[in-house]
Formats: sequence, C-alpha cells, structure tokens
Amino acid sequence: MFKGLKSYGSDELLAKLKGKKPFFICTIATTATARIPNITGAGLNSKLMEYTPAGDVELIVHGEVRCCDVPPQTTMDGTSTPTPAMITKGVLELTDAPYIVANAGSLIKPDVPYISINERPGEDIRTGKAVKNPKKIFENSKLIGYNISKNNDYLVIGESIPGGTTTALGVLTALGYDADFKVSGSTPKNPHNLKKDVVMEGIANAKQIGYIKYNNENKNNKNSKIDPFKVVEAVGDPMIPAVAGMVFGSEVPVILAGGTQMTAVSAFIKAIEPKFDFSNICIATTKFVVNDHTSDIFNIAEQIGEINIHVVNPYFEKTHSEGLKNYLKGYVKEGVGAGGVMLMALLLGYSIDNIRAKIEEICEN
Amino acid sequence: MFKGLKSYGSDELLAKLKGKKPFFICTIATTATARIPNITGAGLNSKLMEYTPAGDVELIVHGEVRCCDVPPQTTMDGTSTPTPAMITKGVLELTDAPYIVANAGSLIKPDVPYISINERPGEDIRTGKAVKNPKKIFENSKLIGYNISKNNDYLVIGESIPGGTTTALGVLTALGYDADFKVSGSTPKNPHNLKKDVVMEGIANAKQIGYIKYNNENKNNKNSKIDPFKVVEAVGDPMIPAVAGMVFGSEVPVILAGGTQMTAVSAFIKAIEPKFDFSNICIATTKFVVNDHTSDIFNIAEQIGEINIHVVNPYFEKTHSEGLKNYLKGYVKEGVGAGGVMLMALLLGYSIDNIRAKIEEICEN
Repeated sequence: MFKGLKSYGSDELLAKLKGKKPFFICTIATTATARIPNITGAGLNSKLMEYTPAGDVELIVHGEVRCCDVPPQTTMDGTSTPTPAMITKGVLELTDAPYIVANAGSLIKPDVPYISINERPGEDIRTGKAVKNPKKIFENSKLIGYNISKNNDYLVIGESIPGGTTTALGVLTALGYDADFKVSGSTPKNPHNLKKDVVMEGIANAKQIGYIKYNNENKNNKNSKIDPFKVVEAVGDPMIPAVAGMVFGSEVPVILAGGTQMTAVSAFIKAIEPKFDFSNICIATTKFVVNDHTSDIFNIAEQIGEINIHVVNPYFEKTHSEGLKNYLKGYVKEGVGAGGVMLMALLLGYSIDNIRAKIEEICEN
Repeated sequence: MFKGLKSYGSDELLAKLKGKKPFFICTIATTATARIPNITGAGLNSKLMEYTPAGDVELIVHGEVRCCDVPPQTTMDGTSTPTPAMITKGVLELTDAPYIVANAGSLIKPDVPYISINERPGEDIRTGKAVKNPKKIFENSKLIGYNISKNNDYLVIGESIPGGTTTALGVLTALGYDADFKVSGSTPKNPHNLKKDVVMEGIANAKQIGYIKYNNENKNNKNSKIDPFKVVEAVGDPMIPAVAGMVFGSEVPVILAGGTQMTAVSAFIKAIEPKFDFSNICIATTKFVVNDHTSDIFNIAEQIGEINIHVVNPYFEKTHSEGLKNYLKGYVKEGVGAGGVMLMALLLGYSIDNIRAKIEEICEN
C-alpha cells in the first residue's frame, strides 16, 4: 500500500483509515521486573531504567528530558542508541497529529500533563503479585478510550515500559500460549532463558497463592477458565490492562503500536472476550522487531487469532545518524509507539523518506 | 435561538456550533481560601468542602461519590440542594457527548481517570501567595487544549472549585476591574464584605512581597503593566490559568461554562493578550446566576470586552424535585459546567424540557 510498509494479513482496515483523523495515546508504565539484572537494555544504566518512560514522553512534549539528567537510551556493548521516542517525536512534529500521554503506572511521574489512569507501578512478576487491581486500570482506560475515540476516526496506542517483553511473556504463558523464545527484546542478545525463568518463578508463586491455575501439560488449552485479570495481577504489567481497556472502550478502530508486547495485549483481550473481532484493530510495528530472529511476533499472533500485523521499515540504512543505524544492529527495535505512529504518518500521506528525514532532524537537535 | 436560552450579545458563534461535535472538559481544583468560615456554601459542612470537586466528578463518572460518604451538596439554613454535577451528569447521559476530567489542583484526588495538569491545590489568597507556578499550569493546559481540540468542533470547559468566586474577585480586582459586590456565590446571602476583605488582605500581602503592583486609586487603569501570572500567583486559584491555557491552546471555539468565575478567566486572558478576539469564545451560564441580584456578571464582562454571554433557564419551577427547586431560591446557581453543558445539549438538538426531565431522573436515582 505504501513504500516502507509490509502488511501481514489483510490491509482492508488500513484502506479505510487512509487520510482519516487519528489520535495517538502514549501509555507509560514501569514494572520492577525490569530491575532484574540483564533483563532489559532500557536506560543508560539500571538506575536510570525506571526514568525511561517519563523521559520518553518529556522528550516528546518538551524536546528535553526533565526527570533526570540524561536522555533515555539503550546502552550495551559500548553503543548508545536513541530512544524510539525520537521516532515518535519526529512523526508527531511532522504530522501535527493530536496526542496525549496516559500514565498506567510509572514509578517516575513525567513532567508533562498526562491522563492519570493508575499511579501504582507494577511489581516484580517473580512475586506472583505484579499488578494491583488490573480491573480498575482496565475500567478507567475503557472510559478514556471511549471518550477520546468519540470524535476521532481511529486511535493509535503505544507503550513505553522497560521490561515489558518479560511481563508480556508472563501473560502469554499464563494464558496458555507458547511464547518461550518468541518475545522480542531491546538488545541484540535476547535473554530468553532469564525471561523464562522469571516468568516460571512468577507463575509458580502465583499458583501457590492461588492466583492462577496454570497447567504446563495443557498449555494449549486456551479455553480453560483462567481469569485474565488474575493473570495480569499475577505476572503482567499495568500497561496491558490499560491498553486493552482503551481498545474495549474505543468506538473506532485501534492500531496497537508495538511489538510482541501487543500480542500479550491481544491475548488478554481475547481471554476477556473470546469472540473478539480483531478485524477492527491491528498491530503495527517496526521492521526491526520482525528482523529480530531471537523472536517471532507472527507465531505468537497466529496462536491468538486473525491479527493483522503491519510492519514499517524506515530504511535507517540510508541514514547518516550512527545512533539510528544501531537499530539495524538489533538495538531497541521498537517502543513509544514508533512503528504505529510511522504507519499513521503513512496513512496521513507522508512518505517514508519524509518520515526518516524528520526523525534524523530530531536526532540531530 | 432555543426555548430556554437567552443570549446577551451576539449569537453568531452559537449558530456556527449548532449540531457540531463538542468535547466537555470538567476542570477541578481547590483553594484553601474556601476554608474561611462562611465564604462558601459548597459541601455539607466545612470539612467536606474540599471533597466537593472530587465528589462532583465521581458522581458524573460513576454515579456515586467515592472519596467521602456524602454527595456534594450545598447546605445552609436547613435546606439541602443537589450539586450542579447532577445537571452536568444528566446532560452528559442525555447527549452522550465525550468528556474528560482535568485536575488543575484538587486537594482530594478523584477516584476517576483524569488529566493531571497540576496536583497542587491553591493556598488561601490572604497570604498573597495563592498559586504556585501558574505559568506551568497554563502551559500544561495549553498543550491539552490544543490536542483535545484537534478533532473536535468546539470545547465546553467547566469548573468545580469551592470558594472560586472569591479568588475570581481577587484576580479581577488585582487586574484593575471593579468587581466588588458583583461576583456571584453559592448561597442566597452573598458574603460580599467578607470576600472583599479577604481579597484586599491578599493584595496587601502580595504587594508587601512584591508580587503585584495594585493601585487602588487607579483601579480602572486596565492597561497597566501588571503581569497576569503574578496576579494569579498572588490572589487567584489554579482553575483560572488552567482554563485560560486550554482556551489559548484550542484550535476551535470554546464555551466557558460558568458564572462570574469565567469573567475572571476572561480578564486573565485579556491581560495576557490585550487584543484577544472574544468572538470565538463565549460564556454560558444558568439563569440562576443572572437572577442573582447580589451579583452582576454583565457589568464585569462589559468592563473586559465584547464577551457574549448565553444564559440557560432549565425551568426548575416546573420540577417536582424539592432539591432542584432550591436553585430557584438562590442556592448553588451554577458549577461543574452546568450552564454550558445545557447550552451544549441545546446546540445538539435536545429541548430544554428533555434536558430538565433527564436531570430530574438523575436526581431521583
């Protein structure tokens, strides 16, 4: 449909959304799971990791980080890669699309106006008690999704939550999906065994405290009567019920702007409403997620249902920015709605070369 | 233009907005000024006064108050009058118009999702240091006004802030307007002398600390170089810069939904931008404010500029509800955007009799 876009599944929905009026919601949260050493690459170092979501949206709104001294970036092996917030900021400046930040539970409050959906960050999923009252987060978000969708043609919902692929694995696993070695990560070396161990510890502890009835022998029995809210409460993160709530509240189509984390949102949605019609929503992500051979977003999505996935390639091989080129080496890949907002820009009529040029401009400043 | 509506000034803007898509923002805040005995009628008693804004929006969103045990109501002389939130809730249910709560600084956080613009409540204006960093509140609100206005045809912005007419008097007076004995109040006996004393004490203290240069002999010199943000900082409340910021940010017309407090917002707007074009905004209020012979909204507005004022009469003389009938006796009068949302309902095609019937239904439940 557009240069720089590859659609897996139907692009019927995109055809409908071409030239229509979007609204972008950037959902931020933290989970203490991300404090587990080596589990995430977000933040210049582990202390700054929890400043990443707040820093991301401060960058978008103010063009500078206010909550700490250094901009959010992924650092490992001596390379420093700009946060995907730069991509998102570039697109928002280019398109002038309306947007708002939604706090689903970030430990650090951003110095920007935001919708307060939940103020309590997620706990370490190893405890088996990860999210307090996910139903309330869901209901609050539903109301926001409903009201914001009312006079807009579609919503684009992104996320910034360090450690979010591990909590995604937690939710997918506990809901009975086979997602081991399939979730993505922010560094080239995806610590799959660590993620799996963390998830299994969380599920074990949650079973002990009676939260979820996960049966390892019966992992494909996706129809079992597991309460999806108990699953998120045990081994999820606050972003998942927040984004799902917005989807349920929305009266218009929704683009889930993210990588494998959005499959966890989709699985959660399906667990709430087994007959959910996925034709009115889709996942949009970056080529870097799809290129990540340590993960498999398509396989996870297929297990859930007919979820159309749209993949944007900003052709960073053409850029002079060394930081952006690191995306080609497997750093960062996605986040802060980067893939989804690039799709939104394409739908609004901007070319992928326009988009990349604007992102380069943002990175240079 | 509609039965139940009387326009003072031009109704050209309303003709343009007929049938168009509105978005309602309910701005809440508190000021410690309201703790001064006898200054406000909000709340069942003085302890509950500061729960009123949070309770108001909880009523709207959930149909019940969650932050305390009793619903917000004005009580005096043994009569109990329902909060205008019931009017607003009725209209929102009737019209299904999209809305959001904006917290401009409420001491009590409502148990609803809301836009966090500012979390710090206003101080007692007698200190001359009423609002911390009004410029930041203004800038945050500007961003929200811009983004929410983007795909909507007009905004309706209401307020809930007990004691707000006194802080309005503070801002009007300090900006050089003659508003003594002209601001409205939530009880039949408007404590004008008390309000004036409080304001003068605040201005005196603010002068002492160098905040504002108010010259009592030169009160009509409205062009004097008083920094409007210093005025709000000294003797205003957090709602004023919040609502003004939304007006400046909005790309579409705005209905300021409130009584004499909205003249303070207008005066603040004009002090920021002396050439501000008031033809794209208007004030909408209730007949109860206009009927209030202890106040004069028209006189204040005339001093500021060509501000069109639209007055809605819900004909509560036709109701069986004893509580609503108290509005006819001068209790409450306005608040939570009641007048403005009734105008919005008229613009959307609902009759004033429909509107009143829905409000009665809400009050009965």
